[in-house]
Amino acid sequence: MFSTDVYVRRRRTLTEKMSSIPQGKRGIAIFLGNVEAPQNYRGNDYKFRQESSFLYYWGLDEPGLAAIIDLDSGEETLYGDNVDIDDIIWMGPQPDIMSKAEKSGAANAAPSKEFDAAVIKAQTQGRTVHFLPVSRYYNTLKLSTLTGISPENVRRTRPVAQGKASSASEELVKAVISMRLIKEDCEIEEIDKACEIGYLMHTEARRGCKPGAREQDIVGRMEGVTISKGWGVSFTTILSQNGETLHNHSHHQIITPGRMLLVDAGAESNTHYASDFTRTYPCSGRFTAQQKEIYDIVESCNELAFQLARPGVTYRQVHLAVARHMLESLGGLGLVRGDVDEMVAEGIAGLFMPHGLGHNMGIDVHDMEDLGEDYVGYDEDQKRASQLGLGSLRMARKLCPGHVITDEPGIYFVPALISKWKSEGTDKGFVNYQALEAYGDFGGIRLEDDILITPDGARRLGTRRLPIKSSEIEDIMSRE
Amino acid sequence: MFSTDVYVRRRRTLTEKMSSIPQGKRGIAIFLGNVEAPQNYRGNDYKFRQESSFLYYWGLDEPGLAAIIDLDSGEETLYGDNVDIDDIIWMGPQPDIMSKAEKSGAANAAPSKEFDAAVIKAQTQGRTVHFLPVSRYYNTLKLSTLTGISPENVRRTRPVAQGKASSASEELVKAVISMRLIKEDCEIEEIDKACEIGYLMHTEARRGCKPGAREQDIVGRMEGVTISKGWGVSFTTILSQNGETLHNHSHHQIITPGRMLLVDAGAESNTHYASDFTRTYPCSGRFTAQQKEIYDIVESCNELAFQLARPGVTYRQVHLAVARHMLESLGGLGLVRGDVDEMVAEGIAGLFMPHGLGHNMGIDVHDMEDLGEDYVGYDEDQKRASQLGLGSLRMARKLCPGHVITDEPGIYFVPALISKWKSEGTDKGFVNYQALEAYGDFGGIRLEDDILITPDGARRLGTRRLPIKSSEIEDIMSRE
Repeated sequence: MFSTDVYVRRRRTLTEKMSSIPQGKRGIAIFLGNVEAPQNYRGNDYKFRQESSFLYYWGLDEPGLAAIIDLDSGEETLYGDNVDIDDIIWMGPQPDIMSKAEKSGAANAAPSKEFDAAVIKAQTQGRTVHFLPVSRYYNTLKLSTLTGISPENVRRTRPVAQGKASSASEELVKAVISMRLIKEDCEIEEIDKACEIGYLMHTEARRGCKPGAREQDIVGRMEGVTISKGWGVSFTTILSQNGETLHNHSHHQIITPGRMLLVDAGAESNTHYASDFTRTYPCSGRFTAQQKEIYDIVESCNELAFQLARPGVTYRQVHLAVARHMLESLGGLGLVRGDVDEMVAEGIAGLFMPHGLGHNMGIDVHDMEDLGEDYVGYDEDQKRASQLGLGSLRMARKLCPGHVITDEPGIYFVPALISKWKSEGTDKGFVNYQALEAYGDFGGIRLEDDILITPDGARRLGTRRLPIKSSEIEDIMSRE
Repeated sequence: MFSTDVYVRRRRTLTEKMSSIPQGKRGIAIFLGNVEAPQNYRGNDYKFRQESSFLYYWGLDEPGLAAIIDLDSGEETLYGDNVDIDDIIWMGPQPDIMSKAEKSGAANAAPSKEFDAAVIKAQTQGRTVHFLPVSRYYNTLKLSTLTGISPENVRRTRPVAQGKASSASEELVKAVISMRLIKEDCEIEEIDKACEIGYLMHTEARRGCKPGAREQDIVGRMEGVTISKGWGVSFTTILSQNGETLHNHSHHQIITPGRMLLVDAGAESNTHYASDFTRTYPCSGRFTAQQKEIYDIVESCNELAFQLARPGVTYRQVHLAVARHMLESLGGLGLVRGDVDEMVAEGIAGLFMPHGLGHNMGIDVHDMEDLGEDYVGYDEDQKRASQLGLGSLRMARKLCPGHVITDEPGIYFVPALISKWKSEGTDKGFVNYQALEAYGDFGGIRLEDDILITPDGARRLGTRRLPIKSSEIEDIMSRE
């Protein structure tokens, strides 16, 4: 965790942001830390991952904690239970809850059951209980039982104003997003570390990409690095020769010459900041002419996005500029035809890139996704599109210094999607299906970096960039 | 998964076992597969792990499935939803639910929502709905909502007889345990594979155990092996120089000469069978005289248990024989004194080994733990003890061919526990606290193998045994 004053300062800022509600009517803000998540049975748990906003405001990385800020009095209390002798035998000596409160800078500590009592008391007194949408099912059940709000509604966000909460608190959601969206220097340092781990894991992947190797073997070597150097993977590794399947988690295939291997993977640092990179490698070490043409287009899209990303521009504009460049380049190959501006407007790029250009990244690899994608990624004056591709854009906002986002264009040839567009005429005549036939087993290419918006542009995160140019990739693979 | 006929046969056997209830009054048995478990937010999930009994009876290793056996008619139905074009873009083409039903040998397939309808209909008709205690919180919430039984009670087991279920079904629990407890040949083959992965991961650990190494680095290398060769770890790796803490998951220390490194870790095969081994290494490559004395006692306890384990003997008897041998040996070092039989009866061994000798192992590393430890590990005529150590024995049953259990004695010097016994006089004068003072920073040693009960004894699982004798360990470490 960072030093205590970081958390004290963050909570003070949050409390100030919530003070637009008149004093005496603010109520309390509650923070539910995570409990262990059973893997196959209770007691055999997945590796513990703290709730991200709890981590951001309280810093404590252990299960079974909760906290309350009284927004009227400013009083802060951490809740949790001290261990007994049985716990010491199994878990070793543990600091007591008061020491944990001190580490997070909270003045008060109390046993867990008093958390429940405090929430019930506040409700009985007619005070507002502000909470964030809940991710885990245990806390869904807990909060629903405690507040009488249905499990669906404890995940939904609505304005509370000064009444009784009937869902997660929009006021609290907006205040938290406004803070977590702009990364502090200490956070950027951690993201740089996570990116360095990402560099190491992707280097393992590239070195393991040899004809005859099993995909699963490569994944193990990559993920081993994330556990040795950090908390583990920031999301389930995507490593597949079927790159056209965006989130492919099956790894039973053998690396086959002539195909390409798409690797989308990242790490969490020990302090739980994420990285997220994608590279696509030629399995035989050299791209075919057809692969190289498409690869170079994706690489130029990645570079274009990086060049355009700067304060004042919206990431929606950058997405659209990339779509335009992609369509122009695909037009050069005869895969689409017609007026480029019309194609952009009609969303033709979505056939080739059915996802957005990027997302926010921080403590979560899709930062704060459970607080609501539109709250996180869209300014109040922006509306989400419904087109394939642009409609999946998770970060559309006007860029500001401190934003950390991914830059991840891709081109895929998805047989089922191409058939659907063809049969439904979705392309409005812009697509040359005959030319597309040569790409039936092409797969897909995605190239992703993580970038920080700076006062005058953007910086690629991490201490060194993974090789990306096609010539550079072929050169390195011929030597590895 | 195994071949379809394995699952057909298992379900037929289960249905027969449930037919002690009169026909027409049997009701239905429901099986809830797992859904994805959110790591930090929904959509960013932990690696998928299927519910173990679902895996055992239906074989299908994907999220979002459920199944029903009509115990009166014998009709079997698999429930789940087919994918649409959006899913294909993100997840690739998927077999439909009917193909999945065929793979598991079920005659019928239906959409998920019909599962809910079938459960409600059965209840409305006054038919019994038999279910197993639920492990995951999502299914707890789902089943509680569907049946009106409280979240606590969907985890509790009681006889249903022929009435309305008010909890998990004791009849179903007992029938499932009677089957899963005796491993089939195809299962033993998979456990042997998991043990071979365990061998490889522990070999990494031993080779990594060099002064100056970071514990976390070693853990990453070990866990990388489990991902390359199998599903991953069968439980969170315990790797610690504080071996006296039984479940120590912190790995931030540096390997320090003079200390010992306790490594308790195992893997799941790709088909989700577990292994579980413990070894304890001298950090400098050689044990001190004090360490070697204790190590050799633990090693002889491990060997004794293996020699005694055979059909007809209870594992409770084996635990007590090990306790007796341990106390005799500790008496030889002057750490305890007095009549050995009295010491065994008073549970003095619990001060040094506050856990049981072993547990069942199979699809779960503590096999079926969520079905109820006493149902799984105790015969109907056995009662669980309350003594420290023996009271934690998870497997006490009379041994039968096909049982797969761990053999894991240990000796620990837990400062907080020693102080407690001393101040409370728990040892009744048998313990020589003065002699114990020399062991204040000793830590702990545990040595664990996985064994199969055979018709005439036991076999250590895996294709090769991890080195275990102190001389052998020192010899190998001097060469690595």
